Amino acid sequence: MSNGDIYLTRRICFCASHRLYNPQLSEQENWHIFDKCSYENGHGHNYELFITLKGKVDPNTGMIINVNDLQKIVEDLVINDMDHRHLNLDIPEFKTLLPSIENLVVVIWNRLSKHSDINPYLYEVKIKETENNSAYYRG
Amino acid sequence: MSNGDIYLTRRICFCASHRLYNPQLSEQENWHIFDKCSYENGHGHNYELFITLKGKVDPNTGMIINVNDLQKIVEDLVINDMDHRHLNLDIPEFKTLLPSIENLVVVIWNRLSKHSDINPYLYEVKIKETENNSAYYRG
Amino acid sequence: MSNGDIYLTRRICFCASHRLYNPQLSEQENWHIFDKCSYENGHGHNYELFITLKGKVDPNTGMIINVNDLQKIVEDLVINDMDHRHLNLDIPEFKTLLPSIENLVVVIWNRLSKHSDINPYLYEVKIKETENNSAYYRG
Amino acid sequence: MSNGDIYLTRRICFCASHRLYNPQLSEQENWHIFDKCSYENGHGHNYELFITLKGKVDPNTGMIINVNDLQKIVEDLVINDMDHRHLNLDIPEFKTLLPSIENLVVVIWNRLSKHSDINPYLYEVKIKETENNSAYYRG
Amino acid sequence: MSNGDIYLTRRICFCASHRLYNPQLSEQENWHIFDKCSYENGHGHNYELFITLKGKVDPNTGMIINVNDLQKIVEDLVINDMDHRHLNLDIPEFKTLLPSIENLVVVIWNRLSKHSDINPYLYEVKIKETENNSAYYRG
Amino acid sequence: MSNGDIYLTRRICFCASHRLYNPQLSEQENWHIFDKCSYENGHGHNYELFITLKGKVDPNTGMIINVNDLQKIVEDLVINDMDHRHLNLDIPEFKTLLPSIENLVVVIWNRLSKHSDINPYLYEVKIKETENNSAYYRG
Repeated sequence: MSNGDIYLTRRICFCASHRLYNPQLSEQENWHIFDKCSYENGHGHNYELFITLKGKVDPNTGMIINVNDLQKIVEDLVINDMDHRHLNLDIPEFKTLLPSIENLVVVIWNRLSKHSDINPYLYEVKIKETENNSAYYRG
Repeated sequence: MSNGDIYLTRRICFCASHRLYNPQLSEQENWHIFDKCSYENGHGHNYELFITLKGKVDPNTGMIINVNDLQKIVEDLVINDMDHRHLNLDIPEFKTLLPSIENLVVVIWNRLSKHSDINPYLYEVKIKETENNSAYYRG
Repeated sequence: MSNGDIYLTRRICFCASHRLYNPQLSEQENWHIFDKCSYENGHGHNYELFITLKGKVDPNTGMIINVNDLQKIVEDLVINDMDHRHLNLDIPEFKTLLPSIENLVVVIWNRLSKHSDINPYLYEVKIKETENNSAYYRG
Repeated sequence: MSNGDIYLTRRICFCASHRLYNPQLSEQENWHIFDKCSYENGHGHNYELFITLKGKVDPNTGMIINVNDLQKIVEDLVINDMDHRHLNLDIPEFKTLLPSIENLVVVIWNRLSKHSDINPYLYEVKIKETENNSAYYRG
Repeated sequence: MSNGDIYLTRRICFCASHRLYNPQLSEQENWHIFDKCSYENGHGHNYELFITLKGKVDPNTGMIINVNDLQKIVEDLVINDMDHRHLNLDIPEFKTLLPSIENLVVVIWNRLSKHSDINPYLYEVKIKETENNSAYYRG
Repeated sequence: MSNGDIYLTRRICFCASHRLYNPQLSEQENWHIFDKCSYENGHGHNYELFITLKGKVDPNTGMIINVNDLQKIVEDLVINDMDHRHLNLDIPEFKTLLPSIENLVVVIWNRLSKHSDINPYLYEVKIKETENNSAYYRG
């Protein structure tokens, strides 16, 4: 019925804490760059994750891929691991990487793009960290 | 004043019901694919429709096309027909097509793109069905 | 630590369809009163349900009652029954009662207030049906 | 011009992390009550704080009290202390008190009610912790 | 079916401009009190108006009063007059009254409470002026 | 860690008033085109401005450019000038240009693109004027 691609976006929320601090920089440099985000005990956010898939619609289902399957894959690969966690302390990728939203969208992209059911359709990973700050990545 | 194109997005809301069910599949397959969306009597949503036009600004009006004209065209071609309706039972396109958001954005695109005032500018049709699910189509 | 009561509000969303039509009135009266809400095949909404409990905080838990328990009770008594359903056709209370939001908040109040864990704390049941329409009931 | 009281609500946002864990209970009890909220390294939220004052309008200003003054007092007494902090580790009141939203609204009420410019007008302290969870306190 | 009162809230939006400036005060006092809100040429907001009615449900309609009737009355008495207007220059009540949200909710209450269909049910008039500032009045 | 570009969006809000009226057209033409937006004394909005930057992440900071620096630049170049102002009367660009959102996104783009720290990364300027109307520009 359509010739072009359809884009489907699924939002999934999780809560986590993090700290923006680079141990290779001085205290003064960290404060200058990260300000309150560098406080020692960290802080947190309600993260809104938006996964966008791009593809043709299956006429039997009216869908690109089943949104319930997508939900389960994102839960398996991202949410069960990150929800209610401290990104720096609990998530392997952030042991040596700053958990900024810019890096977070890439980490989540890399996890999802390794899944063979998602890889052909993955178009965009977006995170809204606060009302004012969001980031997205398209590979 | 600008060399590039401007994108203008108009949001218009409507309420409708629908059922996701493919009569060519078994009951079991329908339940597996559509889950609660396949209940016999249907359910509904507050649909948010976002129409994006792309074009140059008319210096006399500061607009691509008049947003009030756009509103009236979308009401004529989409809203008056779909608002407070059951998509499967009341909308011709969905007599034989699954009323998923993926198909809904294509149906609305096809209706709007036939209008000569809209066609040259139509860039994107997006539907937000719930806080978590949305889809868009760019032709 | 506090002398007064605390109020805790839990939001739970569900999608349903309904029709506003009184069979004891004429077609003309129905149209005059209910307008597009009276279309024969119904329409639907994303309902946001807000349950507010009022009480003292248990110092061992920092809670009035456990919000996970509250969630499960509301799912058992309301959501599993109403989500993705047609209120008029599928919900016993609305076989003979108009499923307006005014009546819906009372129906949900009556269901919840019969549960002995909720009854002592139930303060308000609120439904937001669209961006513009909501109703609440305090017993 | 009016005989009754006016209610003015100011929203102020902050980001913080916390952990729900009662050291006087067993690990098993903590998990049963607090679930993922009890993970050792904590998690966080974008907290929306709503302060409501109640009083008569000053005809010279059209205000109960100046909202800029209110903003500064709330920043001094609450935000500068709690924003980007770990509530359990950084906030004195939560050294021995569970930082649930039920307790958080009381802690903030107690801080604000000690300020002589706010005390006569303080009507409600509300916190929205996520889209689904909020609490309020009226003293 | 219910013994208690039901509360119904209708939201209606309008856009207007205003200036907070008291000509009986000095320039310096105005700046001290109203800051940027006192700029000579004014500024504006997207006002969200929430009208709450309180009453018993009519069993024939499932409503306290018909929300379409309420909509028309509020449009007649408030919106048609204030929408896309400068409150200080165009609205009689604000010729000599500061158009703060505290005064605006009273002005709208006074207009609505004079209407015999609304008066018996009028419970609350609330205005949300920005994400951060709102006020309400209950007569 | 990533090969592709990252997109970072910062939202900054301001309140302003404006009037849509073209003095080179007749009263009748202005009313036909701009309707209530052409009322003599203007009206206003809560404008939400979204600035999107596109670029590679600096591994020392996890950022494209520091969001606090971005915030200060946007405040200097846009917000301090436009917030709480009447766009037609107070902003030089709109002395002879209609302050539609289509033109506003171009004006803000032009201001920001002259800043050497922003220019290499500027990808999109978007304004949300009301819930229903928004526009964006990508140069």
